[in-house]
Amino acid sequence: MKDAQSREPLMANPKAERVKEIARLSTRSGRAKAGRFLAEGPQAVREARQLHTTRRAEGRGPVVHSIYTTTAAAQRYPELVDELPGVTIRWAEPEVIRAMADTVTPQGMIAVCERVDVDLTSVLSATPRLVAVLCSVQDPGNAGTILRAADAAGADAVITTNGSVDVFNPKAVRSTVGSIFHLPIVVGIDFAHLVQGARSAGLTLLAADGYGDADLDDLQDEAAAHRASGRGQPLLGQPTMWLFGNEGAGLMEAELAAADRRVAVPLYGVAESLNVGTAATVCLYASARAHRAGSHAQRDAGVVEPAE
Amino acid sequence: MKDAQSREPLMANPKAERVKEIARLSTRSGRAKAGRFLAEGPQAVREARQLHTTRRAEGRGPVVHSIYTTTAAAQRYPELVDELPGVTIRWAEPEVIRAMADTVTPQGMIAVCERVDVDLTSVLSATPRLVAVLCSVQDPGNAGTILRAADAAGADAVITTNGSVDVFNPKAVRSTVGSIFHLPIVVGIDFAHLVQGARSAGLTLLAADGYGDADLDDLQDEAAAHRASGRGQPLLGQPTMWLFGNEGAGLMEAELAAADRRVAVPLYGVAESLNVGTAATVCLYASARAHRAGSHAQRDAGVVEPAE
Repeated sequence: MKDAQSREPLMANPKAERVKEIARLSTRSGRAKAGRFLAEGPQAVREARQLHTTRRAEGRGPVVHSIYTTTAAAQRYPELVDELPGVTIRWAEPEVIRAMADTVTPQGMIAVCERVDVDLTSVLSATPRLVAVLCSVQDPGNAGTILRAADAAGADAVITTNGSVDVFNPKAVRSTVGSIFHLPIVVGIDFAHLVQGARSAGLTLLAADGYGDADLDDLQDEAAAHRASGRGQPLLGQPTMWLFGNEGAGLMEAELAAADRRVAVPLYGVAESLNVGTAATVCLYASARAHRAGSHAQRDAGVVEPAE
Repeated sequence: MKDAQSREPLMANPKAERVKEIARLSTRSGRAKAGRFLAEGPQAVREARQLHTTRRAEGRGPVVHSIYTTTAAAQRYPELVDELPGVTIRWAEPEVIRAMADTVTPQGMIAVCERVDVDLTSVLSATPRLVAVLCSVQDPGNAGTILRAADAAGADAVITTNGSVDVFNPKAVRSTVGSIFHLPIVVGIDFAHLVQGARSAGLTLLAADGYGDADLDDLQDEAAAHRASGRGQPLLGQPTMWLFGNEGAGLMEAELAAADRRVAVPLYGVAESLNVGTAATVCLYASARAHRAGSHAQRDAGVVEPAE
């Protein structure tokens, strides 16, 4: 960590053009124009730096473009303002950081990041076992929750269709709590194109649908029975692409029609439905568990697993 | 539905004292003073009316105090402005409804409701099998999500400790999407008192804790093995009270110490933690599944289940 005095002067004007430019990354058009997005707060900056370092070591493009910090935040998290080759690090007054950020509590530090999404082909060619698709999910908090849950469940990628909220929206990024930097993300994909790719990659398409004819608990029973006996090919054990739909309307007809099965999370109480982020979490964890059970069964049967 | 003209005149002044009084229900002090809360939008009004009718039929107190509607909303949902004995129903201009509401989109209708929480003794004496406890959960959206998930998973009650957000906060109520009217809620309970009650009621206390030594997947394996063999007493199959902690700090030492087991939802990816609402959903569904499996096993073994 260099001392503020040895660097460029402290940024003090919250109305400066550079500040406004960064603040525009809170808007969809601002992000589209710059091809960049905001990571707010020390935790997000840490994750961004980590992915940046990993990618650079692999000879890939940068993730962090610039970091802005208050003196207090730099003192508290000196490792986050360590020099990164090619990355601008600037000290600023707290009100400057606040003017740049979308949240009212950026905790004194933000990073401007290059878009980290990847292309569909690279994701599908890596033979994924678990993929979450956001089909016209509109709420950034829900999108972020699903991304975080997909990360936690060990999914291989998250994909958004072209009718979905921008996952680089600052609220979505905050809701991922770092997960936006953890797994491959593909954005703005045409649904028909996606289905074609998924079929070629041998993925089973499961639609999360409150009116689905398959009950998630029954599918979990099937997976458990397979685990006990080693027989059968449980649906949840297949390489799976889950489709999660819009908050109000659910999945569209064409999306439901493309799925191999429509799966409902059972409702045991009086609730008529689940929040899409909640339903997605239950579905992704059910798949993760079935996949893990599959590996156990293979291991128990003496089948050598391929190195991952 | 009576015509607006046959009733009191249309409320037109968003600055009227009655409007301000209702708007104050969006604040914690306003709710505490009035002992009432807001149900915003037709869906919430429908659920409030339903619980009101059920309770009145049982000779219990009212749920709905008054309903305010625009002419358009009343025409669209005539069944929601049908007379209810003892309930004031008033027509108002859209800007009056908006001035009363917390949300910017109350969809032309709100209900002022009496607090619907019940006392701890009544919940515990009903031999509950699944209870969710919010221990110092602070975010109203998270509180609402847990309540909705508890309802969906068929929980018997939700309890909040005295350090938790007020579940009658309008944002929390909205996040429950009606579930606030679906299952018994006990609020503001002292934790030590709660533990005492839970022990007397024979409930197993499980702490949802990212650092827990028990893995939720292992517990589910144990429950599945029980289901297959009929042997053993799986932990998840016991009548359970789940403890869910604060968003930042998790459960406090005393809360962890009171639990029979500390249970972690497994993290298969890079995510360091799950959102409390998400973790709660996975835990509650795991319990619901184990309880349901228990009933299956009993049924399969010819054990007659008591009527519920």
